Amino acid sequence: MTMVPPGGVIGILGGGQLGRMLALAAAEYGFDVHVFSPEAESPAGRVAAREWVAGYDDADALKSFAAAVDVVTTEFENVPALTAQTLIGAGAIVRPSAATLAIAQDRLFEKNFLRAHGAATTPYMQIDRAEDIPAALAVVGAPALLKTRRLGYDGKGQVWVRSRFEAEEAFAAIGGAAAILEGAAGFVREVSVIAARSTSGGFEAFDLCENVHRNGVLAETRVPSQASPILAERAIAITQAVAEALDYVGVLTIEFFELADGQLLANEIAPRVHNSGHWTQDACTISQFSQHIRAVAGWHLAPAHRFGDVVMENILGAEVEGWAAFANAQDKRLHLYGKRDVRPGRKLGHATHVTLPPAPRDISLRDD
Amino acid sequence: MTMVPPGGVIGILGGGQLGRMLALAAAEYGFDVHVFSPEAESPAGRVAAREWVAGYDDADALKSFAAAVDVVTTEFENVPALTAQTLIGAGAIVRPSAATLAIAQDRLFEKNFLRAHGAATTPYMQIDRAEDIPAALAVVGAPALLKTRRLGYDGKGQVWVRSRFEAEEAFAAIGGAAAILEGAAGFVREVSVIAARSTSGGFEAFDLCENVHRNGVLAETRVPSQASPILAERAIAITQAVAEALDYVGVLTIEFFELADGQLLANEIAPRVHNSGHWTQDACTISQFSQHIRAVAGWHLAPAHRFGDVVMENILGAEVEGWAAFANAQDKRLHLYGKRDVRPGRKLGHATHVTLPPAPRDISLRDD
Repeated sequence: MTMVPPGGVIGILGGGQLGRMLALAAAEYGFDVHVFSPEAESPAGRVAAREWVAGYDDADALKSFAAAVDVVTTEFENVPALTAQTLIGAGAIVRPSAATLAIAQDRLFEKNFLRAHGAATTPYMQIDRAEDIPAALAVVGAPALLKTRRLGYDGKGQVWVRSRFEAEEAFAAIGGAAAILEGAAGFVREVSVIAARSTSGGFEAFDLCENVHRNGVLAETRVPSQASPILAERAIAITQAVAEALDYVGVLTIEFFELADGQLLANEIAPRVHNSGHWTQDACTISQFSQHIRAVAGWHLAPAHRFGDVVMENILGAEVEGWAAFANAQDKRLHLYGKRDVRPGRKLGHATHVTLPPAPRDISLRDD
Repeated sequence: MTMVPPGGVIGILGGGQLGRMLALAAAEYGFDVHVFSPEAESPAGRVAAREWVAGYDDADALKSFAAAVDVVTTEFENVPALTAQTLIGAGAIVRPSAATLAIAQDRLFEKNFLRAHGAATTPYMQIDRAEDIPAALAVVGAPALLKTRRLGYDGKGQVWVRSRFEAEEAFAAIGGAAAILEGAAGFVREVSVIAARSTSGGFEAFDLCENVHRNGVLAETRVPSQASPILAERAIAITQAVAEALDYVGVLTIEFFELADGQLLANEIAPRVHNSGHWTQDACTISQFSQHIRAVAGWHLAPAHRFGDVVMENILGAEVEGWAAFANAQDKRLHLYGKRDVRPGRKLGHATHVTLPPAPRDISLRDD
C-alpha cells in the first residue's frame, strides 16, 4: 500500500486510553479516526470522527468498518483471531498483522518466538493438564508463576506458586485453561524497549526505559534507565530482530528483565503502544502514538530523539481524586483519559516530570 | 468559578483548525469537548465528543449548548455580540469575556484600547463618512491602509491607498462601512507575543516570535526573533498590561511592528490562540492550545519554556499537495487540519523545524 493521505481514515480497534491517545495523534496529521469497540462513548470514541459500537464478533459491523477505513490498527493484542480474519477478508489492511497478534496473545507462542529469535527468557514449561505440573516444576524450580496462555494483562491471569499442591490448586482455579509455568527471574531491574518499524523496513527505537511495577501494574517509568548502554543496545537489537522476523508494522514493545549477573531476559512482546512509552509524549521529538500512526499509515518514521530526562507515574484508581494537585504542579505534565468510572487500580491518567537541559540561553543556535 | 474537573466539558465556538487543536489539547486533560459551529463535520467537530451544528444566531441551540458545557471559549474573535449575550444569559461562563471580544472585533476600539494602556500604534483616524477622508489622510499620511473596523482577518477587509481619490474609491468599495485609515508603519520586523492569563491573575508569556507575511497571510514564524531582549521585554510587558486591563482569561496574542529606530508599535490584539504560536506545540514545555485550555478551565498556568529554536511554516492552498514530502522530511514535524476543500491560500496545515540543543548525552541529569 502507498501512504495513507491526509484526510484518510485510520480505524482503531478498542476504545481505551491507548486508542484515545492514538486517535489524538492521528488527528494531528489530518486523519479522520474511526474507533470500533463494544462500548458506547468510550474514551477513544469521544475524540474520534466516528464511533462504531459493536461486538468484535459482529461480522456485518466489521465488514462495514473495513470498507470505511484505509487501515486498521489496534490498541490491544487480544483481538480475537476471527475479528482479524473478518476484517482482512473484507479487504482491510490490518497492522500489526494477524500472525503477530496470534503470537502475542499466547504466552507460549510468544516465548517460543522470542527464543527462536535470539532472546533469552526465564525457563518455562507448557501446562495442558494437571499431570504436566510436577515435571514442569522440576524444570523451572519454585517459586514459579502459573500463567494462563491467553488473555492475561497487568498481572491478571497469573499467580505465584511454591509447590506442586499450590500449582495444582491454581491450575484448577483457572479452570484448567492452557497455561505455562514460568521460573522466577530474580531480576534487579525491569526495562522495556518501545520501537517502531515502517512498511519500508525502517526502524526507530526510543531510549531504553526502566519500569517499576506495584501489584502487577506499572507504577512508574524512568528514562534514562540505570542499565548500561551495552545492555540497552542488546535490548534494542533483540527488539529489532523480533520486529523484522514478524515483518512488523507499527510500534511494538518488549519488556525485559535484567539479572544481577547482567543477563537480559525477554519477558513479553506487546504488539502496540505501551504504558511504559507514555513519557515519549513529553520528552521526545515524537511520541510513540504519532510514530505508530506514521508507521501504520505507511509513512516514513520520524527520528525518535529524547531531549530531557523523564519520570512517568501512572495515576491509578482513587489517586485521580488528587487531579488538582497534579494539574497545578508546576513541574509535572498531566494526562487524563476521560474515563468515567473510577475503579480501584484502574489506569485513569499519568503525569510526567521532565528535566530539560539547563541554560535556555545556550540553546539559541542562531548564528548572529 | 472553581477548576473544571477532568471529565468536565469545554465548549468551543468555531470548527476550524484552531478549534481542532484546542479540542485535541483539551482531550489530553481528560475533558470532553463540544464544538459549536454552523458547519457539519468541521475539522474541530470531527475530534469532539459532540458537534453542535447551528447558526451563531440560533438562540435555542446556544441555550442548550450553554447548559451542556462547563465553560465556553472561542477560536475566533468575531463572535457576534448577541451570541455571547445569549450564552451568558443562559448561564454560561464565556472566556474570553464578551467585553474583550467587543474590543478585539473592532479595529477602532482595539487601537484606542492599546493606546490607553501604554502601547504606541501607527497613526490612525476614524472614517465614518467619505467626508472624513481628507483630514484623516492629512494626519496619517500616504500611503495609508483603509481597513474596515469589523470582520477583517488575514489581510481581508483592508487596502492600501495612496491618494484621496483612491481612499474614496476604497471606502465606496466596502459600501461605506465604518472604517479606519491607518498610517504606514515602515517596520523592519513583525513580531508577536503569545501569552496566557489565568483566573487567578497568573501570567505566562511564550518567547517573542518573528513573523513573515506574504499576501497578507502569515507565511513563517521564527523563534527566537532577531529583536533585542529589551524590545522583547517591552512587548511582553505591554501584553501583560493589556491582559490585566481586560481581566483576560485564556491565551491572547498581540502583533507588533518594530521600526528601524527601535520603536515598538502594537498592531492588533487577537483574543485567542494564534497562527504565530503554532511552534509552541513542538518547541515548548506546553503548547498555546494546552495553556489556553488550562486558563479557561480555571487551572493554574504551566511554565512556558522553549527548549529549542524553531521555524514554523504555514502550508497554504495547493502547497498541501506536497504533503508527502513534509510527512517524510526527517527534520520537520507536520501538522494538518483535516480540511476537505483545498482553496487557494487556505490554511491547511503547518510544519515546524526544531533545532534542539546539541549533545544528547550531556542532557542526562542523573547523578550517577
